[in-house]
Amino acid sequence: MSTWNESTGPENDVVISSRVRLARNISGFPFTHIGGENTQKAVYDAVHDASSDLIKNLGLTWVDLRKTTAIDRRCFVEKHLMSPEMTDVKRVGGLILNGDESLSVMVNEEDHLRIQSILPGLQLETAYKMCDDFEEKLGEKVNYAFDEKLGYLTSCPTNLGTGMRVSAMMHLPALVQSGVIKRILEACSKMGVSVRGVYGENSEAEGNIFQISNQVTLGHSEEEITENMAHIIRQIIEKERNVRMRLMNGNKILFEDKIYRAYGILANARSISRAETMNLMSLVRLGIDMGVIDFIDPKNINILLVEIQPGCIQKKYGRELTPQERDEIRAGLCRKMLERETI
Amino acid sequence: MSTWNESTGPENDVVISSRVRLARNISGFPFTHIGGENTQKAVYDAVHDASSDLIKNLGLTWVDLRKTTAIDRRCFVEKHLMSPEMTDVKRVGGLILNGDESLSVMVNEEDHLRIQSILPGLQLETAYKMCDDFEEKLGEKVNYAFDEKLGYLTSCPTNLGTGMRVSAMMHLPALVQSGVIKRILEACSKMGVSVRGVYGENSEAEGNIFQISNQVTLGHSEEEITENMAHIIRQIIEKERNVRMRLMNGNKILFEDKIYRAYGILANARSISRAETMNLMSLVRLGIDMGVIDFIDPKNINILLVEIQPGCIQKKYGRELTPQERDEIRAGLCRKMLERETI
Repeated sequence: MSTWNESTGPENDVVISSRVRLARNISGFPFTHIGGENTQKAVYDAVHDASSDLIKNLGLTWVDLRKTTAIDRRCFVEKHLMSPEMTDVKRVGGLILNGDESLSVMVNEEDHLRIQSILPGLQLETAYKMCDDFEEKLGEKVNYAFDEKLGYLTSCPTNLGTGMRVSAMMHLPALVQSGVIKRILEACSKMGVSVRGVYGENSEAEGNIFQISNQVTLGHSEEEITENMAHIIRQIIEKERNVRMRLMNGNKILFEDKIYRAYGILANARSISRAETMNLMSLVRLGIDMGVIDFIDPKNINILLVEIQPGCIQKKYGRELTPQERDEIRAGLCRKMLERETI
Repeated sequence: MSTWNESTGPENDVVISSRVRLARNISGFPFTHIGGENTQKAVYDAVHDASSDLIKNLGLTWVDLRKTTAIDRRCFVEKHLMSPEMTDVKRVGGLILNGDESLSVMVNEEDHLRIQSILPGLQLETAYKMCDDFEEKLGEKVNYAFDEKLGYLTSCPTNLGTGMRVSAMMHLPALVQSGVIKRILEACSKMGVSVRGVYGENSEAEGNIFQISNQVTLGHSEEEITENMAHIIRQIIEKERNVRMRLMNGNKILFEDKIYRAYGILANARSISRAETMNLMSLVRLGIDMGVIDFIDPKNINILLVEIQPGCIQKKYGRELTPQERDEIRAGLCRKMLERETI
């Protein structure tokens, strides 16, 4: 169960979650996309053996992806435990998870290992430490492919060096509404910071949620990358907060009206699409963060953000559902989570 | 206080209210629009004197329109106690009202006297009897202008004869949504039945509310006109009910979704225009009538229909308000009247 998002972290009025992942490959095996099924099997078995004590001691779970359904895999993607590209591929993959799914390790993804930590709010350092800790422990049992000059070797050269991607999921409704987001995106691009939608490279920024992450993994230490990203994220947080205050003070009634109308629809609809839900949830989240709505627990919005996704809805119901069925169930989930006095 | 609408009448799922008015002029005085101020004064005094016992015995109220504000007069129009054309005119007008405003008599409107009764639901006969009763009692003190061949003489020839207008305020959302309304309007026109919006001749059918009334006042008895209108209204009621069932059974979830979204906005908005309120209230009313919404007392919708009008809002606040102020107050009224469990 993905319960890490049931608490809120620092700066959670703007930062939904922080994520760090380390790409690692095991010395002596070809990369996943080169090796074919036999290599995948060999890597799978090697990691399975090497991690078995660790899994036992840390209370982790090993998931054999061959035994999962397409719905399971879609749900993993929606929870950010797997990249979208991996769902349709028949591969010998594994997934190691801790209890609240804040730590996850993909086996035979783009790299042999993708060690990831995801935490609520802005907690890059802690997330990095969680990854680093697991990486070190597993490193006692396997040899990571490493080059003195290049650092950790990865399947894609963009991950070379530290193999580290640091990212924050940021809710930026005021920057979007005011148009300021364009300047932010340009500035990020110049600083080697990539900005994507909530579900990766080609996804749109639905619900005004952006994934901000480092592009460069080479030539800096893990600590430098983390610090640099934290600095940039803090600047964006400040800008978003300033514009929010400006928008709210500009016309408080219309600001509140927009938020409450979104709440009214979301708390009453009988059928609602994913896209509309994402957009209305953005306004409700903004309302909670600005103190306009005080009767909804903010964690409910974090839970909904995952629950309303098509894969997770279908996983909960244990079968494929038509889009109409999903829209009805989604509306029911929203009504339940947005009831007054949930706090 | 206009409290007649705080109860519901027969067929109130489609018929909001029934209205009957009798146009009368007093023998020996020129028509209001011809006579000028002196005639108006003479008529005013004559009616005032003639009705004083009746007012006392029946517990009625006499309102001197010269002592009312523009807001008061606008509010009278919104309550259908006065025609819109009369509000801006500086005239020596009077208004007799009973306690719940179900009986009202305009003095020096288009005719010297416009005796009106308005009741919830379909109650044409009762409304007619209320008017007739007052007309008869006042007739003991004044002589109505009457011609053996033409009947009661009226300022506008379209009211000649009985001087009677019988109308029903009907809520026809299903006929509008399905487009069937066009055929109904054509049929009405052929049968000498006029169809207007909620506020008279030139107003649009806001909120899917239509005023259905007889065009012909001459050549039929009062009973015939009432019966004929009741028959036509019952036919429209049946058509509306049939199409409602068809729409609801066609796609129940989408039907309910539309209604609950309207409810959600209306019960949460912080600023809302009259037109939007009328349209959303139409859906909420439909939801109540179809049993989709069971937690709102239907009378609240009737009360709101009057309360949200600009004149009534301003009367309540005792001053002129900007459109923005009215929109905010209107939103507050809607929230209050649509709270869950008002039933």
